[in-house]
Amino acid sequence: MTDSTHRTTAIILAAGLGTRMKSRLPKALHRLGNQPMINHLITTARQVFDDVVVVTGPDMPDLEKAVHPFKTVTQIERLGTAHAANTARDLFGTGDVAILYADNPLITAETMQRLLAARREGASMALLGMRPAEPGRYGRIVEDHGRVVKIVEFKDATEDERRITLCNAGVMCAGADDFRTWLADVGNDNAQGEYYLTDVVEMAAKAGPVVCVEASEAELAGVNSRSELACAEATLQTRMRNAAMDAGVTLVAPETVFFSTDTVIEADVTVEPNVFFGPGVRVRSGALIRAFSHLEGCEVGENAMIGPYARLRPGTLCAAQTHVGNFVELKNVELGEGAKANHLTYLGDASIGSGTNVGAGTITCNYDGVFKHRTTIGERVFVGSDSILIAPVTVGNDALIAAGSVITSDVPPGDLALGRARQTLKSGQGLQIKQSLKARKEQG
Amino acid sequence: MTDSTHRTTAIILAAGLGTRMKSRLPKALHRLGNQPMINHLITTARQVFDDVVVVTGPDMPDLEKAVHPFKTVTQIERLGTAHAANTARDLFGTGDVAILYADNPLITAETMQRLLAARREGASMALLGMRPAEPGRYGRIVEDHGRVVKIVEFKDATEDERRITLCNAGVMCAGADDFRTWLADVGNDNAQGEYYLTDVVEMAAKAGPVVCVEASEAELAGVNSRSELACAEATLQTRMRNAAMDAGVTLVAPETVFFSTDTVIEADVTVEPNVFFGPGVRVRSGALIRAFSHLEGCEVGENAMIGPYARLRPGTLCAAQTHVGNFVELKNVELGEGAKANHLTYLGDASIGSGTNVGAGTITCNYDGVFKHRTTIGERVFVGSDSILIAPVTVGNDALIAAGSVITSDVPPGDLALGRARQTLKSGQGLQIKQSLKARKEQG
Amino acid sequence: MTDSTHRTTAIILAAGLGTRMKSRLPKALHRLGNQPMINHLITTARQVFDDVVVVTGPDMPDLEKAVHPFKTVTQIERLGTAHAANTARDLFGTGDVAILYADNPLITAETMQRLLAARREGASMALLGMRPAEPGRYGRIVEDHGRVVKIVEFKDATEDERRITLCNAGVMCAGADDFRTWLADVGNDNAQGEYYLTDVVEMAAKAGPVVCVEASEAELAGVNSRSELACAEATLQTRMRNAAMDAGVTLVAPETVFFSTDTVIEADVTVEPNVFFGPGVRVRSGALIRAFSHLEGCEVGENAMIGPYARLRPGTLCAAQTHVGNFVELKNVELGEGAKANHLTYLGDASIGSGTNVGAGTITCNYDGVFKHRTTIGERVFVGSDSILIAPVTVGNDALIAAGSVITSDVPPGDLALGRARQTLKSGQGLQIKQSLKARKEQG
Repeated sequence: MTDSTHRTTAIILAAGLGTRMKSRLPKALHRLGNQPMINHLITTARQVFDDVVVVTGPDMPDLEKAVHPFKTVTQIERLGTAHAANTARDLFGTGDVAILYADNPLITAETMQRLLAARREGASMALLGMRPAEPGRYGRIVEDHGRVVKIVEFKDATEDERRITLCNAGVMCAGADDFRTWLADVGNDNAQGEYYLTDVVEMAAKAGPVVCVEASEAELAGVNSRSELACAEATLQTRMRNAAMDAGVTLVAPETVFFSTDTVIEADVTVEPNVFFGPGVRVRSGALIRAFSHLEGCEVGENAMIGPYARLRPGTLCAAQTHVGNFVELKNVELGEGAKANHLTYLGDASIGSGTNVGAGTITCNYDGVFKHRTTIGERVFVGSDSILIAPVTVGNDALIAAGSVITSDVPPGDLALGRARQTLKSGQGLQIKQSLKARKEQG
Repeated sequence: MTDSTHRTTAIILAAGLGTRMKSRLPKALHRLGNQPMINHLITTARQVFDDVVVVTGPDMPDLEKAVHPFKTVTQIERLGTAHAANTARDLFGTGDVAILYADNPLITAETMQRLLAARREGASMALLGMRPAEPGRYGRIVEDHGRVVKIVEFKDATEDERRITLCNAGVMCAGADDFRTWLADVGNDNAQGEYYLTDVVEMAAKAGPVVCVEASEAELAGVNSRSELACAEATLQTRMRNAAMDAGVTLVAPETVFFSTDTVIEADVTVEPNVFFGPGVRVRSGALIRAFSHLEGCEVGENAMIGPYARLRPGTLCAAQTHVGNFVELKNVELGEGAKANHLTYLGDASIGSGTNVGAGTITCNYDGVFKHRTTIGERVFVGSDSILIAPVTVGNDALIAAGSVITSDVPPGDLALGRARQTLKSGQGLQIKQSLKARKEQG
Repeated sequence: MTDSTHRTTAIILAAGLGTRMKSRLPKALHRLGNQPMINHLITTARQVFDDVVVVTGPDMPDLEKAVHPFKTVTQIERLGTAHAANTARDLFGTGDVAILYADNPLITAETMQRLLAARREGASMALLGMRPAEPGRYGRIVEDHGRVVKIVEFKDATEDERRITLCNAGVMCAGADDFRTWLADVGNDNAQGEYYLTDVVEMAAKAGPVVCVEASEAELAGVNSRSELACAEATLQTRMRNAAMDAGVTLVAPETVFFSTDTVIEADVTVEPNVFFGPGVRVRSGALIRAFSHLEGCEVGENAMIGPYARLRPGTLCAAQTHVGNFVELKNVELGEGAKANHLTYLGDASIGSGTNVGAGTITCNYDGVFKHRTTIGERVFVGSDSILIAPVTVGNDALIAAGSVITSDVPPGDLALGRARQTLKSGQGLQIKQSLKARKEQG
């Protein structure tokens, strides 16, 4: 960070509607890695720049909310990128300013750092370029002896210029005062009648050297359609998968594991195929996350075994050595060390003591239609299969709940609780019922 | 379509056994996008041609059934492609005829249209060609000044001919009368003693210009093995995924979402990773289909939230704002607006009123071993967890079913229904039972 | 196999810690296709060589256990590959010796066979080479007139040598006595002070012709990091998927199906997307394994239908025509011909007779906290939904269990068993309870 008298600022242009997205949602709010695109860029920009300002479009209250508490200015009319940047001129500060785009969400802090460094090493402006596999209709960066001369739009480019492989990514960095001056000079004398930010480059080149900082196509690729959104998600997931593997996590089939940007997984965790990590998950060393599991807002302790088909929802803490098995949902549950819930179970708003075994088909009734209530189960309890615990209810240590019981009141430690009907037999009636049903069917 | 006096006909050769498939099933019945290959081709051909005729092999009753009501003729002996086409000569009609193959199922209507147009622009014959990445042992299309001279099989080709990159896809279109004449002239004086359709090309070239219409390798690739079937499925899925994204659907990980050819998904639907759409699904705008969900024959209303791990089976209609959660199966269920079934539930043959909450572990007993019965639940009902509804049964509006109840008879509106045993406690017996079991274990 | 007087030996170097794996586990124990890497190599080597010897590092008891009953020697100090190989010199036998590496686990028997054959055709040594897409820092194999001269490490290579595309895979095969002689001559006069096995190649080249046997990069790629482990897993899965498709199995989306090395699937089985086969699975012809299923240690009979979301655990045998549906877990279960368990069920340690229908939500209580007990259900039984069977218990043929029953004692054939409470109604109380809860909420 620079000293406070020369604060650097990242201006993020986010007013775009994204017509190719075919969406009612502002483009900047479409999600990558389980959070809005704009938040990726803000998080990264904050690592490099002192201030972040977001230029929103009119009537985008959800976007304003998403970027809170960062400053926003609203571009009332959409008159082009230079106009958008100029909307924020009063918030440029005194130091360097970088113009970023909400639909270029995957730029890394390292690249932003390189951009800023290039500017500080004596350039009047630094901008980001890439060499795409198919340059297609990208604007080309025209250089002369290593210095950028101008950016030429594809449609205006000569045959020679179209052969240039270095393409404009749109991102640029220059001094605040210079930017203000140049932006004021940009005209709209073109077919669309818009103010283009690329016009600034030629002005900067007259004022001093303009340099291009290159980054990969994947990093700089824009998101203008759902397909490009999916590509960006793939790029982001690949980054996160590689980072996890580099940190000592086994991903049996990395392409089938989906992370959120805040997922934390320690070394020597194994993740089987087809696992989904929503926001807020931490998994401790030695844990095994089995196939088809779905985790959000939870912590998994050392050497725990989760899944297959386990769903851990927010507020869940599975301690060390716990087992959570198939078709089991835990919501806001503390599962004590070594406790097990292995089959077809729903536990919500519950504390389960260490060493307790929760039988197949157990259900906590935590909701009465209006209020949520808590179930507290002690240590070393044996909860028989298909039991129902009607919260609020407490079961003491070492208690035993008989299979099929409906538990409506507290169970003291060590007690046996039963709440089920006795079995009766009706001799021969099983076969009779079947036969009479079949007879009715045959009669039509 | 042409006028009815010159009806166009698509002849689909489908007699192949497909030995490389190693299957008891006729090749044409292997499935892509959840329907037999042959049906893809029929559906497409019907968009371009007036009539469709399928040439089947002997003893293929399932194939005849699958292509009903389209006309079929049976090729009794398998004496080559020209012989197969000739089997259908009486059904060629009076207009143009195209010969297609059941194992080239992914040809688009646009390509068929181009083929027909090329024929009509003055060609004696139009045929489809492609330029595969590896031309390998494909037959080569020999051209001279933009006109096809002949097709040469790879094994008969000169070194120069093998360098040709334009390969024969087998599909051809010509006038019905011409085809009949040429097919009658094809001989079987070759090593296999078979009648080859490719021989017709040279005859056509003598009669007038033969032109080649090119299409992509992926579109024209044949399906002769399970690996090629998997490739064709991938091509088809990619088409459907891209079409969905182009229409404004977010696919977080498109490569993990599987569609059927009739899947309809509106704009601003989000589909998380690992979702399977079987036949007959429609999803309305704003709905969220969460990870690991499986939908068939159902409709999902606006802003509904389905999954993770939700299974919607045929006959299910989830209205707007409904929630269907994890490990929940709905079969032939109408779920009213805003109704919820969030955990470990099986509802079959049921109507659930709007605003009703179905608790965890609820099960409708819709089957008595012979007949299926219906469960009708009103609006704003609270179905307590782990309840059993033994159909036929009706629960009125605003009723409350206590958790763990077995509901065997109707519940009037506003009533509370209970059907469960009372809880009893046996002091200290929980611990005693555990200790005695452990003691027995220690004794061996 | 050679005669017993000249037994061939595969020496597998497995002492590596694999620091880039960032793991507490020895590298050789990291898993591929659901078994430790080392076991892949042992299985393959056993098909080609008479004896297998594993060189382990100190303090690797789990590795010794994994490779049992094969011979091991421990390399106490880690002084380089030649030192490791020399540690096993007393177990070289009298015939040819091949040096293999635990972190090259995917070499095929066919390649090992070619290596051995090349050695026997008059070479003093045969070694494995590959031509990677990016040769990078691999050691280069320097040849002269088709004979290997030496291996040069990248850092020691001249510019010309670095242009060589043939790279050293490390694996070599020579006579036992020669190897002993050469290994004794390897020095450690280098920067690391280690004994390098590659030094042996130049010695062998002096003794006679050294030949290089080439194999693909995918086959010879080393596993030194979690990313490389994931690549090797992908290579292995691709092999198994292709083998299954070649054998007549339909994999709708091969890239989403995960096999173990011992999975056996017969022709005309269809596997839908997202299926996981753990160790020990056999699936018979005509079966359909639906999406999101997870199978381990089980057999699936002809024309059975499994899934979606079915979990079959070890000891399970689903006979012909059985149906196992969604959210159903079977552990150590024999499911008789045509029997069905279609919804939300846990069956453990149970025998289910042919034609029996297990209703939704059925649970066997097979565990009392200490012992496991068995449930035996006869033929044509109708188990009503949400029933609980408390093992040990036996249900006779043609019996009927009423929905929601807790079955604690045996049910004779043909009987109807009931074990549930009667339903009662409290008029108007459902609505009253709801209203009073809401009132309380409004009061806060």
